[in-house]
Amino acid sequence: MPHAARFLENPFQLHVTFDLAATYLFAVTGALAAIAKRYDLVGVLVLAFVTGLGGALLRDGLFLQFGPPAVVTDGRYLVAVALGAATGIFFGRRLHRFRIPFLLADAVALGTYGVVGAQKSLAVGLPVVTALMVGAVNAVGGGMLRDVLVRDVPLVFKPGEFYALAAMAGELVFLGLTRGAGLPGTLSALIAIAAAFAVRILSVWLGWRTEALSGEDGTGER
Amino acid sequence: MPHAARFLENPFQLHVTFDLAATYLFAVTGALAAIAKRYDLVGVLVLAFVTGLGGALLRDGLFLQFGPPAVVTDGRYLVAVALGAATGIFFGRRLHRFRIPFLLADAVALGTYGVVGAQKSLAVGLPVVTALMVGAVNAVGGGMLRDVLVRDVPLVFKPGEFYALAAMAGELVFLGLTRGAGLPGTLSALIAIAAAFAVRILSVWLGWRTEALSGEDGTGER
Amino acid sequence: MPHAARFLENPFQLHVTFDLAATYLFAVTGALAAIAKRYDLVGVLVLAFVTGLGGALLRDGLFLQFGPPAVVTDGRYLVAVALGAATGIFFGRRLHRFRIPFLLADAVALGTYGVVGAQKSLAVGLPVVTALMVGAVNAVGGGMLRDVLVRDVPLVFKPGEFYALAAMAGELVFLGLTRGAGLPGTLSALIAIAAAFAVRILSVWLGWRTEALSGEDGTGER
Repeated sequence: MPHAARFLENPFQLHVTFDLAATYLFAVTGALAAIAKRYDLVGVLVLAFVTGLGGALLRDGLFLQFGPPAVVTDGRYLVAVALGAATGIFFGRRLHRFRIPFLLADAVALGTYGVVGAQKSLAVGLPVVTALMVGAVNAVGGGMLRDVLVRDVPLVFKPGEFYALAAMAGELVFLGLTRGAGLPGTLSALIAIAAAFAVRILSVWLGWRTEALSGEDGTGER
Repeated sequence: MPHAARFLENPFQLHVTFDLAATYLFAVTGALAAIAKRYDLVGVLVLAFVTGLGGALLRDGLFLQFGPPAVVTDGRYLVAVALGAATGIFFGRRLHRFRIPFLLADAVALGTYGVVGAQKSLAVGLPVVTALMVGAVNAVGGGMLRDVLVRDVPLVFKPGEFYALAAMAGELVFLGLTRGAGLPGTLSALIAIAAAFAVRILSVWLGWRTEALSGEDGTGER
Repeated sequence: MPHAARFLENPFQLHVTFDLAATYLFAVTGALAAIAKRYDLVGVLVLAFVTGLGGALLRDGLFLQFGPPAVVTDGRYLVAVALGAATGIFFGRRLHRFRIPFLLADAVALGTYGVVGAQKSLAVGLPVVTALMVGAVNAVGGGMLRDVLVRDVPLVFKPGEFYALAAMAGELVFLGLTRGAGLPGTLSALIAIAAAFAVRILSVWLGWRTEALSGEDGTGER
């Protein structure tokens, strides 16, 4: 099979744990968002599923198209979603406000899926620029679907927050460490995820603001 | 071709009528939703299309990935959408309230797509757990897209309604009858669709409630 | 490869410029919509990406499924999105109201993607009716995703506007000229795009109204 052959030419693959961890963490955020909206158990599970696997499905189903996505051939992804939903329910029923666990889980998942998406794209032979883009979609896709389904403004569109930028910063660190500095892939991935996490959390904590691109206040309405 | 071979090893295929029926019925619900929102003819057709085929496109396009989905190779699916839109327009312009026909059509379609999705997943060799999940996506996907596009809260998220659960109940009945009891596939499918329909309708009629998973009322807002 | 062979049997391919032009123009509309909502630079880029490439991704990823979509193998599509975002920012910051440039860019892109989608579908051997449908999805898909993400009512659903109809009119002109009259493909495409543009703009300018399909005013609410 030419696909397998191309994979073999690129022997480095991030361990599936990274992919599963991002699935789990995004599933937690989906469950928390569903609980905040007072959904029932099924709603929590559906939103955990969409958030946990949405980005990976966009990556595998729309962009890479290497046959059935991992989620349908490997049962561990559904287990990760179920554990994420359970975790979200556990936290969501005990905490008055869960902005902080939501933010932390989302930030780690964001960086992880960015690195995983970029690495998988490079492994199937895509150019670096496209790999960065697929990684970004992988990182922000599930959260975007989560926010659309619960009818919030997607986080990625909110001015004043480093969200997609944090994912891309992590991807660039990963590329720099593996391709530039020649570090081992797993170590590079861990550093890159930490970098994305730091950018995301610091931007919220220190109030880094990106600027709304508007000529006039509100009059630009179409 | 290995795909064809795998299909041949699993000789049982539900008749395409089931797939077409679910497409038709979901198209009716899409048309009714569009009319309730006062869309024009094109809006009705687009929403009938998205609702009727959304679940099948997610199943074929994202999960199974066996080449172009049936809708682009078999013209009957578009005919089913057009008939569904016409039916919706016929009812929608005559009835003051169409909650009941909407509910009935949606409930039959829900069960049908659940069974079809599970069966098609098994036919391509997926494990049972994944097949259940793909069947559920097939069942709730079109309605979820319909609700997002008309900017309603997706039915699947509404506490107090057995929606995805009804689809999964039907899938489990189907699996039990075909794999467990060894009944013929078509008969099993009909019984399973009736079971899903019964669960869905009874849950609405008898007011079965699932519980919102919220620790605090509204304060869980993120 | 049978795919390549099928392409060779259908030697005519519209020049990639048409595809890139539609990507660029829809990216402009996405950027303008994002600026109207006061998103930041990343939000503008994401919405330009989704709007510019959403229809093409639905076409390639869901319907045609000929391997990885062009956007991941050809870097020029991302360049088109970036240029579209830059153009949108340039206009959006200078104009008080940008209804007119938004409308014009959207109308040209609509016709172009309709023709491109129909032509690509015919080139892979789909029947004419399906090709028309895929062309329409290609034409309205990106704008529909744009409107859902910024939480507007999708343009395609608004009564009183010829939107999807304009795209389909262009597709029919294209088919008539190439298959019926035997004109060269590029010339036919240009005439067809002009026709779709004319239908769209005239419908807005002259206030052509399509009729909302509602039996009762508001009481049809489900």
